[in-house]
Amino acid sequence: MSRAATDPTSYDAVDVIRTKRDGGRLSGDQIRWVISAYTAGDVAEEQMSALAMAVLLRGMDRAEIADWTQAMIASGERMNFSSLTRADGTRRLTADKHSTGGVGDKITLPLAPLVASFGVPVPQLSGRGLGHTGGTLDKLESIPGWRAQLSNQEILNQLDTVGAVICAAGASLAPADKKLYALRDVTGTVESIPLIASSIMSKKIAEGTDALVLDVKVGSGAFMKTHDDAEELARTMVALGTDAGVRTTALLTEMSTPLGMTAGNAMEVEESLEVLAGGGPDDVVDLTVALAAEMLAGAGITGVDPAEHLRGGQAMDSWRQMISAQGGDPDAPLPQPRHQHTVTAPASGVLSRLDAYAVGVAAWRLGAGRSRKEDPVQAAAGVRIHAKPGDTVTAGQPLLTLCTDQEHRIPRAEEALTEAVSVEPEGTQLPAPTLIHRRITAEDL
Amino acid sequence: MSRAATDPTSYDAVDVIRTKRDGGRLSGDQIRWVISAYTAGDVAEEQMSALAMAVLLRGMDRAEIADWTQAMIASGERMNFSSLTRADGTRRLTADKHSTGGVGDKITLPLAPLVASFGVPVPQLSGRGLGHTGGTLDKLESIPGWRAQLSNQEILNQLDTVGAVICAAGASLAPADKKLYALRDVTGTVESIPLIASSIMSKKIAEGTDALVLDVKVGSGAFMKTHDDAEELARTMVALGTDAGVRTTALLTEMSTPLGMTAGNAMEVEESLEVLAGGGPDDVVDLTVALAAEMLAGAGITGVDPAEHLRGGQAMDSWRQMISAQGGDPDAPLPQPRHQHTVTAPASGVLSRLDAYAVGVAAWRLGAGRSRKEDPVQAAAGVRIHAKPGDTVTAGQPLLTLCTDQEHRIPRAEEALTEAVSVEPEGTQLPAPTLIHRRITAEDL
Repeated sequence: MSRAATDPTSYDAVDVIRTKRDGGRLSGDQIRWVISAYTAGDVAEEQMSALAMAVLLRGMDRAEIADWTQAMIASGERMNFSSLTRADGTRRLTADKHSTGGVGDKITLPLAPLVASFGVPVPQLSGRGLGHTGGTLDKLESIPGWRAQLSNQEILNQLDTVGAVICAAGASLAPADKKLYALRDVTGTVESIPLIASSIMSKKIAEGTDALVLDVKVGSGAFMKTHDDAEELARTMVALGTDAGVRTTALLTEMSTPLGMTAGNAMEVEESLEVLAGGGPDDVVDLTVALAAEMLAGAGITGVDPAEHLRGGQAMDSWRQMISAQGGDPDAPLPQPRHQHTVTAPASGVLSRLDAYAVGVAAWRLGAGRSRKEDPVQAAAGVRIHAKPGDTVTAGQPLLTLCTDQEHRIPRAEEALTEAVSVEPEGTQLPAPTLIHRRITAEDL
Repeated sequence: MSRAATDPTSYDAVDVIRTKRDGGRLSGDQIRWVISAYTAGDVAEEQMSALAMAVLLRGMDRAEIADWTQAMIASGERMNFSSLTRADGTRRLTADKHSTGGVGDKITLPLAPLVASFGVPVPQLSGRGLGHTGGTLDKLESIPGWRAQLSNQEILNQLDTVGAVICAAGASLAPADKKLYALRDVTGTVESIPLIASSIMSKKIAEGTDALVLDVKVGSGAFMKTHDDAEELARTMVALGTDAGVRTTALLTEMSTPLGMTAGNAMEVEESLEVLAGGGPDDVVDLTVALAAEMLAGAGITGVDPAEHLRGGQAMDSWRQMISAQGGDPDAPLPQPRHQHTVTAPASGVLSRLDAYAVGVAAWRLGAGRSRKEDPVQAAAGVRIHAKPGDTVTAGQPLLTLCTDQEHRIPRAEEALTEAVSVEPEGTQLPAPTLIHRRITAEDL
C-alpha cells in the first residue's frame, strides 16, 4: 500500500496501460501510482488518454473502481462536517443529492432548502452546465448578487446557520478528477461507466456528506440512453458510496422529455420558486419530494412528508435565507429575454413526444448553455414549454417559446427542434408516463 | 476525397475517435484528415493516443490500413528513382528489403551489395536500434569514417554509380509516422498489426522502391512472438505494398535464437565481411541468399544464383565501393572491446536452446543498444556466440563472450542470460531447425 505512496517511480506508465489494454486488472498500487503521477504531471496526458480508452473498452471491476475513486479523492483535500452539532451536542448528519444531468432539471433549487427546512444540512457542491444539460450554478447566477464561490469556512458557517448551501466545488476537491475530466472530454473517453461513476463519486465522497441520493437519469436527454446502462451506473455509484461509508441510494428517473415547463437559467429559478410556493409542475414537485424523502431518510429522519414544507412555506423560508446568505436578493426581478419566438403545434391531437435532447440543444443554442467551459451563458435564454406529452394540442397553438438576447440564435435553435415533437390523432391511448423507474440501495448490490 | 485535403476543419477529432472506439470503420476522408491534422498539430497528442488505443483494440480493415498508410506517405515527400536508367535508356528497377527486427540480424550488410552486384540498385534507408534489437546504421557506424546522412542527390548518385546505398531515412519521409511512432512508444500502443504494418510500409513506399522483400521474424527475439501474428503482419504488409504498386513478397523467418555468431555492432560488420568473402555462418549466408533471390526477382532478374557473387567476390567489391562512397575505410581495423567476460556451458550434452531475446537484452545492456533514441551505442560491445542450438557442448566450455568498454555493465548482462540456455543429454534428437518458415506473395492474399 505504502510503496506507491512513498515511491512514485515504482511503476511504469506503459506497463500499467498494457495491463488494462490486454484485459488484465489493475492493482490498487498501480491505480494509486498512476493517478498520483498523473496529477503531478509525471504521467503525460497522452498516456492517461490511452489508459482511459483502454479502461473504456476493457472495463474495471468493483475493486478497481473503488481504488480509482479513492485515488482521485486522495489527490486533493477532504471536507469534514463532523463539527455540525445540535444544541444537545449530537452530530447533525448531512445529506446531498447528485443528478447525472438532464434537461429542465432544476430539482436542486427547491430540494436543498426543502431538506434543510427539516434541520438537515445540505452541502450541495455543484457544477456548471456543459453541452445540452444545464448547470445549477448557472441557474442561480441569474439571481442578482448571488455568488457561487464560498470558502470552506463560509460553507461550514452557512450549513450551521441556514442549513442549505449550493456553491461551486473548490479546486482543491479531487483535482485528479478535474484534470482527467477535461482530458476525457477531448479524447472520446467520456462514455465509460467506471470513469463516470468514479468522477461523480470522488467529488461527493471528498465533499464529506453523510448521506447521498443519486438521481440517475435515463432517456434521450440523459447521458445514459438505456435502462441497462443507467442501472449499471446507479449500482456502481451506490457501491462506491456504500464502500466509502456514505449512506447512498439511487433513483432511476425518466429523461426522455424535459422536467417541468422550462429549460434555461432564470426561467428555471422562476419555476423553482413556484414549487417552493407550493405550486409548480407535477413532475418537478413529485421528483423533489421523492428525492427529499431519500435524503431525509439517509440523515435519519423518517415519518415526515416533505410536501408539507412546500405547502407550509418552510422550504421557501430556507430558500430566501440561503440566497441572501450568498449575497443574492430573493426579491429582485429575474432577467427577461430581449427576443422571443413561438414554435407551434404541427397538428391537432395528443402530444406524444417532446424530445428532451432536442429541447436541451435548442436551449443551449439560444444561449442558456455553453460549448466550452470558458464561455458565458445568458440568464434569460431558454425554452418555455406550453404542452407536455399526454396533453391535447390544436394545430397552430403555441407549443414552445424560444427565448434569447441574441435574435440570430433563433434559427439554429429551431433547427434542433425539427424532429422533437410527435402528435398522435386525438383519442390515442398513450402509456402512462413513469417518472421514477426504480430505486437502488446497498441491499440491491 | 478533396474535402479533407482542402478543409482540414471538416472533421472533429472526438467523432473520429468515437467511430473507431465503437467498432466502426473510418472513412478515407476521416483518416486523411486525422493524420494531416495530427501532423500539423491540430489534433493533439492525447487525442491521437486515444485513437491509437482504439485502433489497437478494435482493428482496421484492409482499406482503412491502406488509407492510413497513404495518409502517412502524403504527410511528407516521396522519393523517385525513375531517372535510373541503363545505357540503352531502359529503367533500372530498384529493390529493397525490410526486416521487422531481430537479434544478430546483420543481413542488410552483405545483402545490399550482393544484390547491387547484379546491377540492381538498392536504396536501403535504415534506422537505428532501439531496445534489444540492433540497428543497421549503428553497425555500419563502427567503420571509421562512414557516414549515415546523405542528401537525396547523393543517394541518387550513389545508386547510379555504386548501386547500393545504406543510409538514414531523411526527416522528410513520412513525418506523420515519426511523430506517431514516438507517441505509440510511450502510450502502450506499439503492438497493433495495422499500426506496425502502416508504419513500416509508409516509409518503404515513400522511399520509392520498385520491389521489396519483407523479412518478418517470429520467435522470442522478434516483435511477433507467434506464427499467426507474424503471418498476419506479413499479409498486411504484402497487401499494402501490392496496392501501392510495389512488387512485394515476405519471408517468415525464425528468430528464437540469434542469427549467426555475433550480436553487436563492429562484430556484426566483421561477420558480414566473412559472408561477403564467401564464408560466414550458414544461417546468415542462407538467409542473405534467399532474400537476394527475392529482391532480384522483384527487379526482374531470375535464373541467377546469388551465392556465386559471394564466392566470386563481386559482392565484396560492391561492399567496398559502397563503404568508400560514404566516407568509410573498408580496410580500417574495427573497434575492439576493453573488457570481455566468458559465459560457459552449464552442462555437457546438446545445446537445445539459446534464447534470442535474452542474448539481445545482454548485448543491449553491454552497450550495443540504447534505451532512448538520444543514447549513444558502443561499437565494440555485444555478445560473441561459440555454440548454436544443435551443437554438442561440454560443461565449462565457453558458450558466449560478453564484450563491452564498461566493465560495470557485465553483471546485468549476465543476469539477462540466466534462463537463456538449455542443454539436453547427449544423443537427444532435436527437431531440425527451420530458418525460413514460409513465403507470402500477392497471390496468397
